[in-house]
Amino acid sequence: MNGALLREEERIDDLQCKGLKIIQNPKGFCFGVDAVLLSNFCEIKRDSKVVDLGTGTGIMPILIAGKSSAKKIFGVEIQKEVANMAMRSVKLNKLEDRIDIINEDLKKIEELIEVNSIDVVVSNPPYMNSDGGLKNPGDLKAISRHEVKCTLEDVIKAASRLLKHRGNFYLVHRPHRLVDIMCLCRKHKLEPKNLRFVHPSTNKKPNLLLLKCVKAGNPELKLLSPLYIYNEDGSYTDEVYKIYGKERLDSQ
Amino acid sequence: MNGALLREEERIDDLQCKGLKIIQNPKGFCFGVDAVLLSNFCEIKRDSKVVDLGTGTGIMPILIAGKSSAKKIFGVEIQKEVANMAMRSVKLNKLEDRIDIINEDLKKIEELIEVNSIDVVVSNPPYMNSDGGLKNPGDLKAISRHEVKCTLEDVIKAASRLLKHRGNFYLVHRPHRLVDIMCLCRKHKLEPKNLRFVHPSTNKKPNLLLLKCVKAGNPELKLLSPLYIYNEDGSYTDEVYKIYGKERLDSQ
Repeated sequence: MNGALLREEERIDDLQCKGLKIIQNPKGFCFGVDAVLLSNFCEIKRDSKVVDLGTGTGIMPILIAGKSSAKKIFGVEIQKEVANMAMRSVKLNKLEDRIDIINEDLKKIEELIEVNSIDVVVSNPPYMNSDGGLKNPGDLKAISRHEVKCTLEDVIKAASRLLKHRGNFYLVHRPHRLVDIMCLCRKHKLEPKNLRFVHPSTNKKPNLLLLKCVKAGNPELKLLSPLYIYNEDGSYTDEVYKIYGKERLDSQ
Repeated sequence: MNGALLREEERIDDLQCKGLKIIQNPKGFCFGVDAVLLSNFCEIKRDSKVVDLGTGTGIMPILIAGKSSAKKIFGVEIQKEVANMAMRSVKLNKLEDRIDIINEDLKKIEELIEVNSIDVVVSNPPYMNSDGGLKNPGDLKAISRHEVKCTLEDVIKAASRLLKHRGNFYLVHRPHRLVDIMCLCRKHKLEPKNLRFVHPSTNKKPNLLLLKCVKAGNPELKLLSPLYIYNEDGSYTDEVYKIYGKERLDSQ
C-alpha cells in the first residue's frame, strides 16, 4: 500500500516518532530542524483546532498529530504537487480523520476556515524576502524558501484572522527578520509573548528564532533561555537529544 | 579642590579608566554594568558629536570622553540636582571643553541642539513603564528607573530628530521591552541593525540588550553572539574582564 502512495523520485522517511512517516522528494524542499523545533515549542491543548500556514509536505500537522491530542489540524499549502504529497503522507499515517490538507492560497483561507475559530496557528514560512537573491521563482524549492507566493505579512494577517481571542500563534523564522516579525505581529494584534533564540553553540550568534504570540495579548515579552544545538565538542546538547530522541539523531 | 565639588552624602568613585572619576550619591541612582556595556558597545568616530539622552550623573559622557576622540558630548538630564552632580563630575575630570551637561527635558532638546546635526545618540533610559509598580514618583531613583518624566517613545523620537542621516543610535534596555523598542525605532526611522543580548551565563535568559540603530537604514537586523557575564564556576568571562579591565573588577 505504501508503494501506491509514492511517486517517482519520492521517498518515505521515518520520523522516528510513534511510527510516523513522511513522503519527501529529495530534489524538493525537505523538512529540517526548524519544523522539529517548532513542533516541540508549540503547546497544543486537548481537542484544539490547529492550522499550519504553508504546510509544505505536511511535516508540522503530522508531528503535531503525533505529539498532541489536537482534534483537527488543517495544513494549508498553495503548491498543488506539494499539497498532494502532504495528503498522501496523511493517508500513509492513517491520520485522515485528524488532518485536512487544504490546497489553497493562504490569502484566501477565510473562504474555507471560519475566522476567530482556531486555537493555535503555527507557521514555518519562507524565510527570504522575495527580493533576497531569488533565481528561479518557478522552482518548488524557491516557493518554499522565498516570499514568492505570500509575504510574511500575509502569513501573520491570516493567522490573526483565523485565531480565537487569546489564541496562540507559533512561528519559526530567522533572526534577521526579527524587526519585521515584531512590527507586523503587533500591527495585526498578535502580541509577541515568548521568544527563544536557537544558537548552533554557546558562542555563536543565533540562526533561528521561535516565537509565541497571543492574539490581543498584553505587551510584555519574555525572552527564554537560549537553545543550543551543539556542545563545544561537537556533540548534540542534552536538550536537542530530548527534543529529537536519541534514536533519531543517531540514525542521521 | 575635589572636596569643593562634593556635597553632603556624595562620594567620588574611581572609574578605573584613564584616571576618570564620577561623583555619585549612594542613596540615589548609581551607574551600573549597563552604562559600562553601552559605552563599550557604541562606536564613536574621531571628532563626532554625541548626545546622551537621560545622562543621569554623566557616566556615559565621561566614559565616552575617555574611550573615544569625540569632539563634543552633550549629556541631557531633566533632574536639576542630578544634572548638577554630572556638571561637577565633568569639572572634576577637567572635561568642560568636551562635555556639556544640559539640564533640560529631552522633549524640548530641539530648542538647544540643532536637529539632524548629531553623529551618535546613546541612551540608558528608564527601563520600567510608568505603570510598572511605581511607588514614589517624586523620588530621584524612581525618575531614573521609571518612565515618569519621559517615555521610551520620547527618547527614540528625540534621538531620531537629533541624528544626521545615517547617524547611529545606541540603546541599552531590558529584553521585556524588545517589541516596543523595535516598533518605536522603526516608526521613528531608526532602523535596528545590530542586536546583542547580555546573559548572566550561558544557560540563563538574557537580562539586558544592546541595540544599534541607523537613521534611515535599510531593514536587516544582525543578531550578534551573546555576551555572557559569568562563567559556570561564577568567575567573570574573559570578555567581561576585557570590557571592565581586570583591576576594576578585582577592586569591586
